[in-house]
Amino acid sequence: MHTRDAEATKARILAAAVQEFAHHGLAGGRVARIADAAEANKSMIYAYFGSKDELFDAVLEAAVAGLHEAVPFTADDLPGYGARLFDFIVEHAVEVRIDAWRRLERPAVSALEREIFEEKIAALDEVKARSGASFNSADLLVAILTLAWSWVAAPRALATLASTDVAAQRQRVVASIEALCAAVR
Amino acid sequence: MHTRDAEATKARILAAAVQEFAHHGLAGGRVARIADAAEANKSMIYAYFGSKDELFDAVLEAAVAGLHEAVPFTADDLPGYGARLFDFIVEHAVEVRIDAWRRLERPAVSALEREIFEEKIAALDEVKARSGASFNSADLLVAILTLAWSWVAAPRALATLASTDVAAQRQRVVASIEALCAAVR
Repeated sequence: MHTRDAEATKARILAAAVQEFAHHGLAGGRVARIADAAEANKSMIYAYFGSKDELFDAVLEAAVAGLHEAVPFTADDLPGYGARLFDFIVEHAVEVRIDAWRRLERPAVSALEREIFEEKIAALDEVKARSGASFNSADLLVAILTLAWSWVAAPRALATLASTDVAAQRQRVVASIEALCAAVR
Repeated sequence: MHTRDAEATKARILAAAVQEFAHHGLAGGRVARIADAAEANKSMIYAYFGSKDELFDAVLEAAVAGLHEAVPFTADDLPGYGARLFDFIVEHAVEVRIDAWRRLERPAVSALEREIFEEKIAALDEVKARSGASFNSADLLVAILTLAWSWVAAPRALATLASTDVAAQRQRVVASIEALCAAVR
């Protein structure tokens, strides 16, 4: 098979795997269904990706890298970062579901993801040093990420009672992060 | 069977179901394993609870009611509420996992849970009316719950870089909610 064909097949397998794992999770996901949807066969999937677990990891790594590229971190503008992260989350429900399955079924920390967080913490540490503040950068990042995810993470029974307008939700995320940033010193 | 025996069997089934569903989720959970662990049999489980889905719902309702009883809502002390909710979450990892599965596999809103949130929102509305503030109570509750859950909800790759000391995490939750409350008017 030509390299170009191989790359196209791999891309089709990954795209099919994203949908399968988003719907059914890792344990419930079926390699046979992924093969069908990708017009590939199971042995090809194992040859390219190793195992179902490793295929799931490949899907996760692609999602982590995609989020990182799409939402640049601005340590000196955390409300703006939160707003852009919120926008990404709203538009990527499939990746959000895969992330939720991962927490339950594949909790090992990805080296890529750790590296990306270390970069963000280092950037926050720089801003902190310039301003003479004393907050813990990683802890602040936990709160900011959490708030950007809050409308996805809230119990559905509560979310249906709160603002359902996306613009209003976005505005709440920004206001909450602003309040947090005003309070940390 | 005497009523008392029936109640004891139901309680054993529920306790076994909590463990099974926490580990494997709804689709992956096996009624046969629950029957074994509860020293009951499958037909008894179906007679008492109806179906695997309904058994899962019974586990969820018990968890929702248990949380509601254990963590009273104090609309006039939201940082205190956040701290007690954080304590509960830390001590109930099994229920936290079941909640995560539920979001993926059983997203229908429970009537009990909706009612509990409506009560909390009404209590916040009262505090708001007294203080003449104009915040949206449901939206504020979304942010407060999210912050109380932030250490569970944070990506593990980030959580391993942030404060791992539970007392420090608790203090962050309280400080974040205080900052939010100071900012809303």
